[in-house]
Amino acid sequence: MSTAEETAGGEAQPWGEVTPDAARRLLLAAVEAFAERGYHATTTRDIAGRAGMSPAALYIHYKTKEELLHRISRIGHEKAVDILRTAARAEGTPAERLADAVSSFVRWHAGGRTTARVVQYELDSLGPGARAEILALRRQVDAEVRGIIEEGVRSGDFDVPDVRGTTLAVLSLCIDVARWFNVDGPRTPEEVGELYADLVLRMVGARGTGAA
Amino acid sequence: MSTAEETAGGEAQPWGEVTPDAARRLLLAAVEAFAERGYHATTTRDIAGRAGMSPAALYIHYKTKEELLHRISRIGHEKAVDILRTAARAEGTPAERLADAVSSFVRWHAGGRTTARVVQYELDSLGPGARAEILALRRQVDAEVRGIIEEGVRSGDFDVPDVRGTTLAVLSLCIDVARWFNVDGPRTPEEVGELYADLVLRMVGARGTGAA
Repeated sequence: MSTAEETAGGEAQPWGEVTPDAARRLLLAAVEAFAERGYHATTTRDIAGRAGMSPAALYIHYKTKEELLHRISRIGHEKAVDILRTAARAEGTPAERLADAVSSFVRWHAGGRTTARVVQYELDSLGPGARAEILALRRQVDAEVRGIIEEGVRSGDFDVPDVRGTTLAVLSLCIDVARWFNVDGPRTPEEVGELYADLVLRMVGARGTGAA
Repeated sequence: MSTAEETAGGEAQPWGEVTPDAARRLLLAAVEAFAERGYHATTTRDIAGRAGMSPAALYIHYKTKEELLHRISRIGHEKAVDILRTAARAEGTPAERLADAVSSFVRWHAGGRTTARVVQYELDSLGPGARAEILALRRQVDAEVRGIIEEGVRSGDFDVPDVRGTTLAVLSLCIDVARWFNVDGPRTPEEVGELYADLVLRMVGARGTGAA
C-alpha cells in the first residue's frame, strides 16, 4: 500500500527531527505497518522486521507498540499546529491567511496521507494519557483556524453565523483529503489546495466570493 | 467502542433487508469487530463468537471474512446511492434538492458512523472484484450529487467554476462526519445536517447565500 519513499519523502513528512536514525526508521516502519494492516494486527516484531532490526533493538527505543503510535500521533499533531499557526500569524487579510492555512493543510494531508490516516483512524487505540495529550493538540489546531475566522467576522470580511461549526467543517474537509487523495488521480496536492481555499472562502462568506 | 444497539438502532441502519436473522446478526457482529480491532486483526471465530454462534454456523452464511466486508460495503454503498437519488429526484429547486441531499447524507453518516467508518477505512482490504463493484457504486454516488450541481449551474442558481472538484469536496465533507461525530458532543445529527446544507449552498454560490 505504501512505500518507505512515499511515507518518508518530501517536505510534508515531519520525521526529520527524530533521532537517532534507528528510532526514525522504526517510526516509519510502524506507520507503514499500521496503515497496511491496522494497529491491532501489527506486532512490534513486524515493525522491527520492516525496519531491518531485531525486536530487542526496537525495545531500546520504544517500550511498547502504543508508544510508537503515540509518538507518531504527537509528531503529526505538532506539525499540524505548526502549519496552521504559521498561516494564522502571517501578514495579510483574514481571507489571505485563511486561504493560506487551508491550502497548506490540504497539501500536507495529501503528501503525508499514509501518516495522516494512521493518526486519524487509530486515535481510539491510544491509552487515556496519550489520548488526552493528543486531544489538547487538536484543540490547538481548532483554535488556530477559529481565530482567523473570528478575526474575519470582527473585521466584516466574513459572514459566519456559526463560527464553531464552520471551523469544524473547514478542518474536516482538509483532513479527509488524506482518505481520498490518490497520487494517480487527476489533481496535484497544490491544485486540491487551491480549490479548497476557494471553497472555504465561500463557506465563510468572504467578500467577493460565492453568490451572485 | 460500539454497542449492538448503536450499530443496529435507528432508521440510519440498512440491515433490515438482510435475512435470515442469523445472517444479519453476523453482519452486525462483523461491523462491530472490524470497527474495534480492524479488519486484519479480526477472525471469523471472533465474529461468530460475538454473534453467539459457532464458526461452523458462520460458514453456512459467509464463506470468508472478505465476503462479510464485501456484503457490509455493498449494502452501505447501495443505501448511499438510494439516499442521494431520492433527494436528487425530488421536487424543488436545485438548491432545495442539494440541501436535502446533504442533510440526509450527513444524518446517515452521523447515525451509522460505525458502519460508515468500516466501509470507508477498509476499502483497501477488499479483493479486486469486490473493490471494482464498490467503486462502481461510488461513481453512482458521485453522479447523483454532480447531477444536482450541474442542473443548478445550467439554471443560473449556482456559480461553480469546478463542478467535479466541488462535488468531490461536498461528498468528502459529508463522509468525514462519520470520523468526528460524537453522540456525546454538542450537536445532533439533524443540527449538523442543517449546518452542512447551509455551508454547501455557500460552496456552490447559491443565490442568496454567502458573500455580502
